[in-house]
Amino acid sequence: MPELRKDPIIGRWVIISTERGKRPSEFVVQHPPTKNGFCPFCPGNEDKTPPEIQAYRPDGSKPNTTGWSLRVVPNKYPALRIEGDINREGDGVYDKMNGVGAHEVIIESVNHKDALSTVSDKQFEDILWSYRDRIIDLKKDPRFRYILIFKNHGEAAGASLEHTHSQLIALPIIPKRVAEELDGSLEYYNYKERCIFCDIIRQEIMQGVRIVAENSDFIAVTPYAPKAPFEIWILPKKHDAAFENAQKHQYENLAKLFSNTLKRMDKVLNSPPYNFILHTSPLKDGDSQHYHWHFEIMPTLIKVAGFEWGSGFYITPTPPEEAAKFLREAKI
Amino acid sequence: MPELRKDPIIGRWVIISTERGKRPSEFVVQHPPTKNGFCPFCPGNEDKTPPEIQAYRPDGSKPNTTGWSLRVVPNKYPALRIEGDINREGDGVYDKMNGVGAHEVIIESVNHKDALSTVSDKQFEDILWSYRDRIIDLKKDPRFRYILIFKNHGEAAGASLEHTHSQLIALPIIPKRVAEELDGSLEYYNYKERCIFCDIIRQEIMQGVRIVAENSDFIAVTPYAPKAPFEIWILPKKHDAAFENAQKHQYENLAKLFSNTLKRMDKVLNSPPYNFILHTSPLKDGDSQHYHWHFEIMPTLIKVAGFEWGSGFYITPTPPEEAAKFLREAKI
Repeated sequence: MPELRKDPIIGRWVIISTERGKRPSEFVVQHPPTKNGFCPFCPGNEDKTPPEIQAYRPDGSKPNTTGWSLRVVPNKYPALRIEGDINREGDGVYDKMNGVGAHEVIIESVNHKDALSTVSDKQFEDILWSYRDRIIDLKKDPRFRYILIFKNHGEAAGASLEHTHSQLIALPIIPKRVAEELDGSLEYYNYKERCIFCDIIRQEIMQGVRIVAENSDFIAVTPYAPKAPFEIWILPKKHDAAFENAQKHQYENLAKLFSNTLKRMDKVLNSPPYNFILHTSPLKDGDSQHYHWHFEIMPTLIKVAGFEWGSGFYITPTPPEEAAKFLREAKI
Repeated sequence: MPELRKDPIIGRWVIISTERGKRPSEFVVQHPPTKNGFCPFCPGNEDKTPPEIQAYRPDGSKPNTTGWSLRVVPNKYPALRIEGDINREGDGVYDKMNGVGAHEVIIESVNHKDALSTVSDKQFEDILWSYRDRIIDLKKDPRFRYILIFKNHGEAAGASLEHTHSQLIALPIIPKRVAEELDGSLEYYNYKERCIFCDIIRQEIMQGVRIVAENSDFIAVTPYAPKAPFEIWILPKKHDAAFENAQKHQYENLAKLFSNTLKRMDKVLNSPPYNFILHTSPLKDGDSQHYHWHFEIMPTLIKVAGFEWGSGFYITPTPPEEAAKFLREAKI
């Protein structure tokens, strides 16, 4: 059983994924990803994944057969286990919890060759709907406090399978970076009685120098103090704490702007590996005035030196204003 | 001039290193490190680095000539600039500061082939003395609040030159991870009137399962909730907030234990790339009761997926108890 453990000094929870237990020798040889042509996410191989949780099947075909356009399945090697109650336990100064959670995979397209930047706007919108559907379903489980949705694209960004997919992890804790944003934005709200993200959006629209692209519902900007070069955030212009509260026109416009942004990134950075992550409010807190959901996209351009995550201090070689200019002016 | 910018939501400062400004095309081609035989850190090439700040010269030789056993020089491509006053400035909701700071390189050995795990205990001790000397010297500069000492070993860990060296960055701010440790340990101290690190050391000695090695002054352990597999912390058994307060016997014993620990890591993990970072108290706060200096060592074994540093949520495949057992039982 995997375990959730809490750093006793700074309070960050980590997963000790015992069932993936790695001996030292397994780290020494770097295995390249299997490219022998077999892909468990391709149509026809539905029985090679655990049974599907959800699928979009325009032709009304049966579960776990071909005919789907999007499929959500449990991760075959989950970081957390869905079964069991949550038991918090002390061990001297330390705190732990059994590793209860959900770990799902969203297979974003039937076509092995697709990338998220090449699927149709309609397909992109469906992917966003599937995120929403899964959040709404998992929200009913009182054990979970947060749902982490993210994507690793490309080997250098941590993807272990080529076929385009995102991942979802439902957690009994709130991830540290999100908790920090919640705390920071609450402090600002208490002081100003305004959402800091709304203030940022107003300033970005006024200044214009960090805008990558926008439409009536969304804006894509390079953040003022990025963790990495060419980092991009996509934020809804209308205040809302929770992704799953969005309306149909918002998912439509998000799909359009997200796709447009990834195309710009592909053009300017030669289709880089990247990660994105959805920052949304904790499950019980979806109508807060101080938090504002958004996506953070980070192309994998430079090695993150261990000193950076050991210090929390990042050095970025490209000013976000320059990055935004390249992205904004890209001919796509 | 580089710029320090503050994330308006979570308060993390980053460096925008404008003088290293990178255009997109520079990210696209991955340059392998130069291995044409020329090394600016080798003896005879003293004029290829900026003039030395400090050197250990057992033979009494002149500055910037051969004869040294250890040399500290300014970084030729500094992330921050030493000249100028600190000017904090607002920009709407944002905060910035001009990029004032020191960025130095500690050349740890004359021998290009040396690694930190292969230098003599005496040489390792000298490296620690040089860290202390530089901290004590830079402490006099009222502009600086924190001195970050770290090492990137191996290309995968971010080293751009092969010749063994550490780096030092003096900062007008406190790095976020250290600030978090300061806050967390103060909270614990206010509640318990004990140092949390001292409590951790007591528990680790009692339980024994996460100990890698120890001697009379220091203990090397794998942390209970690691950020990465085989992460190791080295802590002084006697409470002290600041590295530069240590006594001679402590530097001697730290050199021995640190070297021993790196040898174990080399043996078990086949000489992996790694980073280490010194966590010590801010410059004005060297006698605090709640903080406890230590080194954190992180071998570069798995890719840190962007989702991990976008969420602050880490998944580790090797329990620290297993990692410690491998390291403890290594025949070195």
